[in-house]
Amino acid sequence: MKKLINDPADVIADALRGMAIAHPELRIDHTNRIVYRGDAPVAGKVGLISGGGSGHEPLHGGFVGAGMLDAACAGEVFTSPVPDQMLEATKNVHSGAGVVHIVKNYTGDVMNFEMAAELAAAEGITVESVIIDDDVAVRDSTFTAGRRGVGATVLVEKIAGAAADQDRSVTEVADVARRVNAAARSMGVALTSCTVPAVGHPTFDLPDDQIEVGIGIHGEPGRDRVPLQPARAVAELMTEPILSDIDFTGGDGVILFVNSMGATPLIELYVMYAEFAAILDKAGIRVARSLVGPYITSLDMAGCSVTLLKADDDLLRLWDHPVNTAALRRGC
Amino acid sequence: MKKLINDPADVIADALRGMAIAHPELRIDHTNRIVYRGDAPVAGKVGLISGGGSGHEPLHGGFVGAGMLDAACAGEVFTSPVPDQMLEATKNVHSGAGVVHIVKNYTGDVMNFEMAAELAAAEGITVESVIIDDDVAVRDSTFTAGRRGVGATVLVEKIAGAAADQDRSVTEVADVARRVNAAARSMGVALTSCTVPAVGHPTFDLPDDQIEVGIGIHGEPGRDRVPLQPARAVAELMTEPILSDIDFTGGDGVILFVNSMGATPLIELYVMYAEFAAILDKAGIRVARSLVGPYITSLDMAGCSVTLLKADDDLLRLWDHPVNTAALRRGC
Repeated sequence: MKKLINDPADVIADALRGMAIAHPELRIDHTNRIVYRGDAPVAGKVGLISGGGSGHEPLHGGFVGAGMLDAACAGEVFTSPVPDQMLEATKNVHSGAGVVHIVKNYTGDVMNFEMAAELAAAEGITVESVIIDDDVAVRDSTFTAGRRGVGATVLVEKIAGAAADQDRSVTEVADVARRVNAAARSMGVALTSCTVPAVGHPTFDLPDDQIEVGIGIHGEPGRDRVPLQPARAVAELMTEPILSDIDFTGGDGVILFVNSMGATPLIELYVMYAEFAAILDKAGIRVARSLVGPYITSLDMAGCSVTLLKADDDLLRLWDHPVNTAALRRGC
Repeated sequence: MKKLINDPADVIADALRGMAIAHPELRIDHTNRIVYRGDAPVAGKVGLISGGGSGHEPLHGGFVGAGMLDAACAGEVFTSPVPDQMLEATKNVHSGAGVVHIVKNYTGDVMNFEMAAELAAAEGITVESVIIDDDVAVRDSTFTAGRRGVGATVLVEKIAGAAADQDRSVTEVADVARRVNAAARSMGVALTSCTVPAVGHPTFDLPDDQIEVGIGIHGEPGRDRVPLQPARAVAELMTEPILSDIDFTGGDGVILFVNSMGATPLIELYVMYAEFAAILDKAGIRVARSLVGPYITSLDMAGCSVTLLKADDDLLRLWDHPVNTAALRRGC
């Protein structure tokens, strides 16, 4: 294992320590491993929290700030945070307007967020939970019943964050988040495995001439392995199951999100972006907005994912709302 | 070679095609491979251009926009653009106030930018050239006479871009750029080699248990190879030659820039950032501002670099000036 880390057991604590110094506008509770915006709770605003296993950076801590999340709970690598973390975060971002939990659909996360929501409700806090399950690759994979939550999480956090920033109510913010999830589909491909620090060796073996189509963000198995092929063909393989799942034509266009799994550099992402855009153009689907970069990663995995969100005018306006976080800034 | 590309000969054209669709606010001249801000030339403003071999994305095209570059010229991977590209860009960003060229210190870039500056001067355009040579690792490496230009390039483009945006004169903007270069030092480390698409195999071999200290952004040899070690020790190795080169204490603090070479994910960068910050703290050097992420990469190389800039109040104010580019947005 070749990584720039100290003791593998300290990776999360060390990274949060770095984050706290690099981003003094955040407040980090190192004991509970929660990243807060410095001014939380924001009076009158619905609180928005997410969290999950670490190893997907900048998700979720990098999306804490004005116009996006109020707090993010960090678990161990690829391991759900515990209900106590989520409850603590919920209480600290609640300003009276209620809290929305954004939960990626993995068994541990769903169970723990559910428990935290119940405990918060017992303390009189209105909590709405939104489950993200946009991955068309597989159903019932490792860690998951139903579809996995992947790239749409970033779009939901951005758009629901904007809705909360516009002082919509807790049910309205949750409704926006659910609308985004319902209209978004994703698919990923791996060129290499990731290596979990505490494990020390790659999660899976992938021959030099093969790629894994439909990979999960924890290295969970995808649909199948195919020979390495040109970007154009890989983009076709990734887009076909998305476009056959829901109709992306019409509406006010799509948000096209091309994401690095961690080790794939930007030059390759733009090559892939060009191919995705060409496929959509041919299918009569208009790209209204774009996001290209490493936003939901899988440690040092090489590969990329694509997320399509069928947007209406309301969602596009929320997408364009200013945001100021460590990893995503818009609307300067 | 495992990459998400089509024909290796088309990588730059394909990536620029993607960039053009993803960022409609940019104007891309695909024939000359120049990325312009959409509203160039900006009346009354000094034009700021840079460029160099591709493979370092988001450098330079990702830094084109308000508050940073007016244009970026893309060469083939790790190969300087030609004087014609630079001349064309210079003419198109010149609004009468003159143009500053930001040139990384590699023999080809320096020679070609020099020729372009002479040709532009012959057409009556005032051009100031600023050479970036912040890498303390080696002197006279492959491609270079003197020190190499690396991470400081990002800081120079940001800060000189702000100075130009504040309507400083061409000599003032060039002076700010030179001040940043003079006060900045960098050092990089590689965990793996990069692979140039047209070559198809890694540039160098690096055993599984070794890292290369002082690596160049083209995979040029560094100072030496040492066993893989904890992040804390790697940070010490990288910082020592920087701190012994110039005195970073005093002033108004430093800008600490921790950069991924391409394949190293954010979680490791934050671990490294924490170690660099601890070393500086011990040395009595105050961190005034931070930048953490993949901003000047070397294709799919795993590793990181650190850049320290000793800043004064003027430079910090320029650093804080709003910027709106594909890869760097601030001041929302």
